[in-house]
Amino acid sequence: MKRVGILLSGRGSNFEAIAQRIDEGKLDAEIAVVVSNIETAPGLRRARERGLDVAFVSSKGLAREAFDQQVVDILHKRRVDLVCLAGFMRLLSPSFIRAFPNRILNIHPSLLPAFPGLQAQRQALEYGVKVSGCTVHFVDEGLDSGPIISQAVVPVLDGDTEESLSARILEQEHQIYSKAIQIVLNGQIRIEGRRAVPIS
Amino acid sequence: MKRVGILLSGRGSNFEAIAQRIDEGKLDAEIAVVVSNIETAPGLRRARERGLDVAFVSSKGLAREAFDQQVVDILHKRRVDLVCLAGFMRLLSPSFIRAFPNRILNIHPSLLPAFPGLQAQRQALEYGVKVSGCTVHFVDEGLDSGPIISQAVVPVLDGDTEESLSARILEQEHQIYSKAIQIVLNGQIRIEGRRAVPIS
Repeated sequence: MKRVGILLSGRGSNFEAIAQRIDEGKLDAEIAVVVSNIETAPGLRRARERGLDVAFVSSKGLAREAFDQQVVDILHKRRVDLVCLAGFMRLLSPSFIRAFPNRILNIHPSLLPAFPGLQAQRQALEYGVKVSGCTVHFVDEGLDSGPIISQAVVPVLDGDTEESLSARILEQEHQIYSKAIQIVLNGQIRIEGRRAVPIS
Repeated sequence: MKRVGILLSGRGSNFEAIAQRIDEGKLDAEIAVVVSNIETAPGLRRARERGLDVAFVSSKGLAREAFDQQVVDILHKRRVDLVCLAGFMRLLSPSFIRAFPNRILNIHPSLLPAFPGLQAQRQALEYGVKVSGCTVHFVDEGLDSGPIISQAVVPVLDGDTEESLSARILEQEHQIYSKAIQIVLNGQIRIEGRRAVPIS
């Protein structure tokens, strides 16, 4: 059974969607550990309630590298095959990324490369796009810039607020993240240049 | 009847789609003139074959402003209500844009703001996105940056070449451009900040 480590800073709704797919037998994996940099993150509490291994790593007074090394140590100790970011509000250092080459995934609430960074849904509304969506991608050293595994599209409606658009995108996030994780765990994808292409 | 002026530099397939929609009674407008900066543009020939007014304006040895002024004069003389770029391979000068405030449309073969500029389909393939599409937008002084009226999505398939993706996007361009033109001609849209919003 492939082992997934999850990093989160907030409510962790994508973590919960992944855990639910596993419970339903729709994603063939197990969650080895849930790590957070925020002690009070609701996602961390929910992971505990599910009886999962959890870890809180305080970033207080730590240099990025020192914090990242602690997280990497935890992930290595739990023999994690794949790291999934689920609302983890910190940039990973290059040494973290090198510790899990092509083994870190993120989900972002826009059709990348449009609207990277924070508040992607607000960026999309302010730009005035008519469609947006979400993107599962490998994490590299850039900002939301790694090879794309999967994207889902949602319409932007005329009366949309940041909340209504975010909710519509989130539904799709919950759909595509687990599927992308399964594809990567199955080794059904390889990276060519900056493209993630299926192995036929 | 609202009068549309079309600017093109190449085959003008979007021009032909617009002309066809008008012929079919699906777009309530008339083409007042087709202008090209390329004397041999197939689109200009086809406009002539359709019996439309055409104009070739050579940019040879002309400063941008002088060229643009000639085109603006032609469009004004034909009492054009709306200017539609259809593969017009020149940037418009600020004075051109000021001559037709919120009255110039363009269609671009990507989901803007992703992949502005030339070879948008190739940019999309090289980036490795899983969805792309096309965008009808008002022309402002930036590069493919004006308020968006309409977008259509197409999937990027694993075996896609620049040609196959371009063809799939082009089908959608032909669909959405005429509809967007109708909406603008009907005055069903207003610009708020950088957003084009329907008037309800």
